[in-house]
Amino acid sequence: MATLDLSQRARNSALIWIKTPERTAMTTSATLAPVLDRIDADLPTAIDRLLDLLRIPSISTDPAYKGDCDKAADWLVADLVALGFDASKRPTPGHPMVVAHHDGPGPHLLFYGHYDVQPVDPLNLWHRDPFDPEIQDTAKGQVIRGRGSSDDKGQLMTFVEACRAWKAIHGTLPCKLTLFFEGEEESGSPSLIPFMKDNAAELTADIALICDTGLFDAETPAITTMLRGLLGEEITITGPDKDLHSGMYGGAAINPIRVLSRIIASLHDDAGRITVPGFYDGVPELSNQLRAQWEDLGFDAKGFLGDVGLSVPAGEAGRSVLEMIWSRPTCEVNGITGGYTGDGFKTVLPSKARAKISFRLVGTQDPDKIRESFRKMVRDQLPADCTVDFHGHGNGPASVMATTNPMFDKARVALSDEWPKPAAFVGSGGSIPIAGYFKNILDMDAMLIGFAKDDDLIHSPNEKYDVSSFHHGIRSWARILAALS
Amino acid sequence: MATLDLSQRARNSALIWIKTPERTAMTTSATLAPVLDRIDADLPTAIDRLLDLLRIPSISTDPAYKGDCDKAADWLVADLVALGFDASKRPTPGHPMVVAHHDGPGPHLLFYGHYDVQPVDPLNLWHRDPFDPEIQDTAKGQVIRGRGSSDDKGQLMTFVEACRAWKAIHGTLPCKLTLFFEGEEESGSPSLIPFMKDNAAELTADIALICDTGLFDAETPAITTMLRGLLGEEITITGPDKDLHSGMYGGAAINPIRVLSRIIASLHDDAGRITVPGFYDGVPELSNQLRAQWEDLGFDAKGFLGDVGLSVPAGEAGRSVLEMIWSRPTCEVNGITGGYTGDGFKTVLPSKARAKISFRLVGTQDPDKIRESFRKMVRDQLPADCTVDFHGHGNGPASVMATTNPMFDKARVALSDEWPKPAAFVGSGGSIPIAGYFKNILDMDAMLIGFAKDDDLIHSPNEKYDVSSFHHGIRSWARILAALS
Repeated sequence: MATLDLSQRARNSALIWIKTPERTAMTTSATLAPVLDRIDADLPTAIDRLLDLLRIPSISTDPAYKGDCDKAADWLVADLVALGFDASKRPTPGHPMVVAHHDGPGPHLLFYGHYDVQPVDPLNLWHRDPFDPEIQDTAKGQVIRGRGSSDDKGQLMTFVEACRAWKAIHGTLPCKLTLFFEGEEESGSPSLIPFMKDNAAELTADIALICDTGLFDAETPAITTMLRGLLGEEITITGPDKDLHSGMYGGAAINPIRVLSRIIASLHDDAGRITVPGFYDGVPELSNQLRAQWEDLGFDAKGFLGDVGLSVPAGEAGRSVLEMIWSRPTCEVNGITGGYTGDGFKTVLPSKARAKISFRLVGTQDPDKIRESFRKMVRDQLPADCTVDFHGHGNGPASVMATTNPMFDKARVALSDEWPKPAAFVGSGGSIPIAGYFKNILDMDAMLIGFAKDDDLIHSPNEKYDVSSFHHGIRSWARILAALS
Repeated sequence: MATLDLSQRARNSALIWIKTPERTAMTTSATLAPVLDRIDADLPTAIDRLLDLLRIPSISTDPAYKGDCDKAADWLVADLVALGFDASKRPTPGHPMVVAHHDGPGPHLLFYGHYDVQPVDPLNLWHRDPFDPEIQDTAKGQVIRGRGSSDDKGQLMTFVEACRAWKAIHGTLPCKLTLFFEGEEESGSPSLIPFMKDNAAELTADIALICDTGLFDAETPAITTMLRGLLGEEITITGPDKDLHSGMYGGAAINPIRVLSRIIASLHDDAGRITVPGFYDGVPELSNQLRAQWEDLGFDAKGFLGDVGLSVPAGEAGRSVLEMIWSRPTCEVNGITGGYTGDGFKTVLPSKARAKISFRLVGTQDPDKIRESFRKMVRDQLPADCTVDFHGHGNGPASVMATTNPMFDKARVALSDEWPKPAAFVGSGGSIPIAGYFKNILDMDAMLIGFAKDDDLIHSPNEKYDVSSFHHGIRSWARILAALS
């Protein structure tokens, strides 16, 4: 879901680099070297397989694509069975899970990814069919263009391709593996917790690997150790019981768009702080140690904002941009609609106005308490005659990873061997609640390692994944498997 | 466009009434009586003709229906030619005008109506195809159900049918007539002023009759003598130059929905007054005489609001509901959209947010000055990095009619003869700028007489026109033609 390839990035660095043979020789075992060679040789067919998967429009949030989600699950099961996994599609009340097992020596690793993708609207901003992917040459190198290429089909296939190369060379795998692919990650994961609870024994491993995050920059891989939580709320304000003519009723009848706008305007104060009562309970200040480490990353706030046409940080006064996106909570309106929104003009005074609002959470902020406080705040602002309906869209608290687990350091070394610069422990503005679920439900630490870049346009038109991310991502997993085995 | 059949209405009164023969005999001349009889006898075929016209989806604001607007104009030309009018379709840069002339003794009357209709969304709230009209029995009597049945096809056909009956009986018409039908009334009338200026001599008559307003209540006809003006503005706020992931950028990047909501929230103060600087320049207080006359109307404010599920007037503190809708200016948001508005949830931080905002104007408020002041107010509130695009949707000042013209009293007497209660001079919350154009461009007074009811659902799903409105509307025009001849 979230990428955190932040700043510096491709602007100032080539996407393709050549490791010196000396360094590779020093860090690559006789077991690993032929696997890496195989990955290099197999890259074109690995890309073809990914393109096949990208052609399935598995949009989980839209019921019209239910059959396509099923098809994507079937595709993965077939591919994993062909690789020698004991793989199956597992029904849920929503879209199916894919679970696959393969024996091997210890440790037992669980790998998580998701095969569902975001909706594609606004479709008119795509330069080609989102589900007719292709390889494109760009000024920054080759990219795989299409919905899900980065989030998360391209990322999850890096691990599958690493397994494929390893098996092709050695006939077996270096660790005991469980692969766990979800089909509802982009729609709030309604089936995830019940499924994990019902299948806890089968899914519990020594550690979880989650491939749904990004590089720090084009040369620096990252292990994400802090994730923001997410709370989604949809509110519908009703005023008149039908749409009215604004000439006939305007002035006398309450306009729900005006009411909704006032509520949204009240959610932030002039200093950018969120006004929901009790919202900042459990929001920690950064430790001096972490603050120093983040300052060392050389994050380019100006470039980060400049890449999207902005220049002034919009968050809380007195906070750095990295704090705003990694360690501070937010409140965003993700969508709003009411009245006539087509071409031209219609003098309607609408009956209803609706907004989708989400909160990113940090530290120990309690999503349930914040949801209740938000709803009370909205109700308290309703004028006479207006009613409000709330629809919750799932919630998950923030996560902080247990970096004391020695596997974190092994993975960091393995990643550092593959990429030009050493791997960093970073925060993430995005929300990947499954890391918290693995800890709370299965008592299992999780390492978030991914290869997305911040210009991948995930959740936006023209999503892409660098061929370089895909290629070095596969090689990275081969190195991590070797390091953890 | 605007109906002003306000309060009391059908709730407490039967829709069909029987005139005592005595009263009819007293007020109906030997010339008029057979025309009224013919209207009664011809009602079923008149309804069939109206249903034919309603089947043409002439939505002027949506370019997809351009051909249908043309077809509606052709339909009217053919009908008027068959009636002996010299009628033609006249091209404009937008949808065509229909102009038709018929000789007769003085005075020369110009009749105005519009053949275009409002869009039909939300389509799912219609109980049948908006363009498959039918007669329905309801608890309040028979209605003609379909888009445009009231606004304005049903209304304009009342006049055409009155002419048809008169010609059928007498072979001629009692006045010299010009009929002028527009096809862009629901989309801001972009071609109207140039067309009137280019054809001023042809369109100038002794007085204009405009049939686009309503009854005061089911038993009381009305001549509208005050109309609010209308100023439409569409504003688009752009923040980031592309849609962003709210996890990756949320907190650091400005959200244009938040900016737009703050601007909308700032347009009214806590007392319901509009805050655009200079907005109230030219807003007159009601004269004591008019205030007394309006109080005599017995307007049922509680019923007016209760009919649409409301109980508390939402306008300026200290004003009556009748003032709010007839003599006070307003600012309404007619539509808002931004980000993801489909089913489910999408954590997008959108690039753009858009609102359609309209102002109803009274007295001598200057639409151009208010537009500039509004735009400056919006620009002054823009945070760094945000831009705004404005798109004007036409403007027209308020109108106050010259009721000293003796034709007003003749029409009032004629209407009072047809309906159970005497006709009233009333205000209107709606905006029919053409009345002002007739005065300013052609130096011609205008009488606004219509038969719509406030439960006609114009501009809303399930629009209808009472068969009683249609029938007595036709009879009313026959009486007015007789009275003015």
